Amino acid sequence: MATAGRRAATRPLLYERIAADVADLIARGTYRPGDRVPSIRELSRQMRVSINTVMEAYAQLENRRVIEARPQSGYHVSCAIPEPEGAVEYTGPKQNLAATAVDLGSGPLEVMRTLADPGLVPLGRGVPNAELLPIDKLSRMLATAARRFRIDSVSYAGAKGLKRLRTQIAKRSLDSGCRLTPEEIVVTSGCVEAVTLALQATCRPGDTVAIGSPVYYTFLNSIQWLGLKVLEIPSTPREGMSVDVLAYALRHNPVRACLVIANFNNPLGSVMPDERKEELVRLLRAHEIPLIEDDVYGDLGFGPHRPSATKAYDEAGLVLYCSSFSKTLAPGYRVGWIAPGRYIETVQRLKSVFSLATASPTQLAVAEFLTSGGYDRHLRAMRRTYAAQLAHVRAAIARWFPAGTRVTRPEGGFVVWVELPPEVDGLALHEQALRKGIAVAPGTLFTTSDRFRNCIRVSGAFWSERIREALRTVGGIACGMARIRS
Amino acid sequence: MATAGRRAATRPLLYERIAADVADLIARGTYRPGDRVPSIRELSRQMRVSINTVMEAYAQLENRRVIEARPQSGYHVSCAIPEPEGAVEYTGPKQNLAATAVDLGSGPLEVMRTLADPGLVPLGRGVPNAELLPIDKLSRMLATAARRFRIDSVSYAGAKGLKRLRTQIAKRSLDSGCRLTPEEIVVTSGCVEAVTLALQATCRPGDTVAIGSPVYYTFLNSIQWLGLKVLEIPSTPREGMSVDVLAYALRHNPVRACLVIANFNNPLGSVMPDERKEELVRLLRAHEIPLIEDDVYGDLGFGPHRPSATKAYDEAGLVLYCSSFSKTLAPGYRVGWIAPGRYIETVQRLKSVFSLATASPTQLAVAEFLTSGGYDRHLRAMRRTYAAQLAHVRAAIARWFPAGTRVTRPEGGFVVWVELPPEVDGLALHEQALRKGIAVAPGTLFTTSDRFRNCIRVSGAFWSERIREALRTVGGIACGMARIRS
Repeated sequence: MATAGRRAATRPLLYERIAADVADLIARGTYRPGDRVPSIRELSRQMRVSINTVMEAYAQLENRRVIEARPQSGYHVSCAIPEPEGAVEYTGPKQNLAATAVDLGSGPLEVMRTLADPGLVPLGRGVPNAELLPIDKLSRMLATAARRFRIDSVSYAGAKGLKRLRTQIAKRSLDSGCRLTPEEIVVTSGCVEAVTLALQATCRPGDTVAIGSPVYYTFLNSIQWLGLKVLEIPSTPREGMSVDVLAYALRHNPVRACLVIANFNNPLGSVMPDERKEELVRLLRAHEIPLIEDDVYGDLGFGPHRPSATKAYDEAGLVLYCSSFSKTLAPGYRVGWIAPGRYIETVQRLKSVFSLATASPTQLAVAEFLTSGGYDRHLRAMRRTYAAQLAHVRAAIARWFPAGTRVTRPEGGFVVWVELPPEVDGLALHEQALRKGIAVAPGTLFTTSDRFRNCIRVSGAFWSERIREALRTVGGIACGMARIRS
Repeated sequence: MATAGRRAATRPLLYERIAADVADLIARGTYRPGDRVPSIRELSRQMRVSINTVMEAYAQLENRRVIEARPQSGYHVSCAIPEPEGAVEYTGPKQNLAATAVDLGSGPLEVMRTLADPGLVPLGRGVPNAELLPIDKLSRMLATAARRFRIDSVSYAGAKGLKRLRTQIAKRSLDSGCRLTPEEIVVTSGCVEAVTLALQATCRPGDTVAIGSPVYYTFLNSIQWLGLKVLEIPSTPREGMSVDVLAYALRHNPVRACLVIANFNNPLGSVMPDERKEELVRLLRAHEIPLIEDDVYGDLGFGPHRPSATKAYDEAGLVLYCSSFSKTLAPGYRVGWIAPGRYIETVQRLKSVFSLATASPTQLAVAEFLTSGGYDRHLRAMRRTYAAQLAHVRAAIARWFPAGTRVTRPEGGFVVWVELPPEVDGLALHEQALRKGIAVAPGTLFTTSDRFRNCIRVSGAFWSERIREALRTVGGIACGMARIRS
């Protein structure tokens, strides 16, 4: 538990004394990780000091990460649970880095199926919370667009997608540092189709794709079906995929494409710093290797600025930028897009081969939504909620999971990556949780190697008493495993 | 021109005399192919005979194919232009039947692009006429469904698709002789995705697909991208793909799958008779070869009964039945389906790899449309219009195309296949028509061989003075070519 060390000042200022008192209460367990501490007004009354003094005290405690402000919920004791640095450590460039074919047996597929099972508590689910989606506004947009663009709404949108939508997407691309034109964009049935088209446009069966590890399991599924091999590149929760290791790997492996989630990575939550993004693009350009970027979480950052896309550093047309509105507006609308750089002709042709065109009414509705201007306001509200929920999830993990557990502290998105003590087997945890009606995503889903056995991915998309209880239950099971084996 | 031979009856009945008189007027050119002949009421007045007598006379002329009734337009002189039997004749099982890789160069792709160009007169376009689609009702259904199924409308529908829609599709499958359950169906983004998934579920790169020739060019595009080879099986406008030749081909080629449009084939318009369908299914079953059936035109027949699907004869789960609502409700909704028999697990997984799920709002809207009961009424109206338009198109071809031209007489769908005199080159015709703002689909698009050079596919989806004039223009160009070269 966090304690606030008293500073060696000869005469502490009033706000420092207040801060020290609060820290003391936390250290003694009066307030536990995740608990709400008194509001500024309450504490000002209780301690008979000014509002300003309490505000300064809380600011100091916040700087020291003793407490944290949560949107619309006041100040809470920080979940001072460490982040898993070691979970994704690599032993340096000499470690074994080899491409492997993907062969998901029935086990992983069955696990994936449970994650989507609506009858289970969705701790492992990687989908957004439908309650946070602008359902009614979207429905109105759908109805308006179908009335307004009668014939367009029933006709083929063309392999490239509707110009109205591509124009809106191009305008928004400035936020991520890209300067796309509508002509550079192909609308897809969600980001999954975008990434699959990108893989097909750049690779042939047998080719190797380098990808940050742990790997989003849907990518493993696609890579298997396309007959590709995967080369897992170690990543850290702070910086994502290691560009150094990738550089080493490229010298020793015939890599045909690289696939990255640079912003609010699923499952790590990592954001690649801008310098790394630039390095990555430069490195791949030197090898003439295309970079497939999945930026589907990029709009869900909790900070004041949207992180840039690696596409922003692409001067050679080698980055195939993929994204969608599935995490922010509506997964069920299946509206995504790809800006495939120099691969645009191939991607367009593949799109026509695989599904001819994306559905028109949903394209029109999303275009209307973006034109109407409410998208940024909606995003702000969504980010606030996810930030608060992830804090709740981390607090629950800090409270109920076994000692030694580490959890990531993502600055965006809605998943955390949990590294449990080595005695805890993620897959066994999944199985035991399942018997109690809870779906947990075991770390083994996210690799073709034998790593991440003691890891799980936990969703912060949903928050309720039921979720809290489920985390308590899973924590209890994990504590049992940690005790038995240690 | 058709003439009605006078029968050798000693005393012709009154109605026979009337029939002979009308036939005589036609033979002398007073009424030309496609012209409307007097209505029953008019002729009864003009010839001072009873309505019943004229009706009997017209029935006789209709039986002899001298005149034909067109819905809501009265009786017209038949386009007594012969059907192209010879165009697709084959020289027997000894002819060269070899699988070939598909390699559409930039030429065919450029031609395909012109067919979809909205700035050109769409003689070659294979899409339904948007004016005939129930746009306003669909828009209402879209709005209603989004309001009624709020969360479902924005959420992932699952790789299999929404149960409500699958239930409706299963109910309608009885019309084509299938008895599908909702669990046997996977919803897809149109029939193109269904066929592509079916090909991927059954074949690996390098495998050979047998397919009726001429081949719908979108199939060739898919087959090329999937790295497959095509084995073109000769077809006739009457019976479609020759099961005899296929049987021969199977003995000499390692065929991995067979792809067929058995009902109102695109481009031939052929319907495989029920006995042939049964034979085909039996033959393939004996070889354990899956049959991919595209039945997207099956609901667009002009006769009283919907033709059965080959799937109706499938006892082994070897038929992968593909269809969609793109030709009947809305191409832009991208709602199709596949009933893949024993391949259902694979198809479901492929669907999740390639696009995760089909858009929910359009699935819901189509399900609402089907539930509301107006679909059959809508189909009846659509069929009547297409029947009338195809008659107009055939009449225009009969009038303006060079002597020796043959054209199919489809009993459903909205395309005709035209065999021009051997001197006329379809591709040159396409190029010259393009200069006059008209898009024509040359026969060479529909094969990997050098056949069908003197053929074109003409759409009857649209009809207007502009279309009639375009046919006259194209006919004029063709006549010029026929004269120059003969």
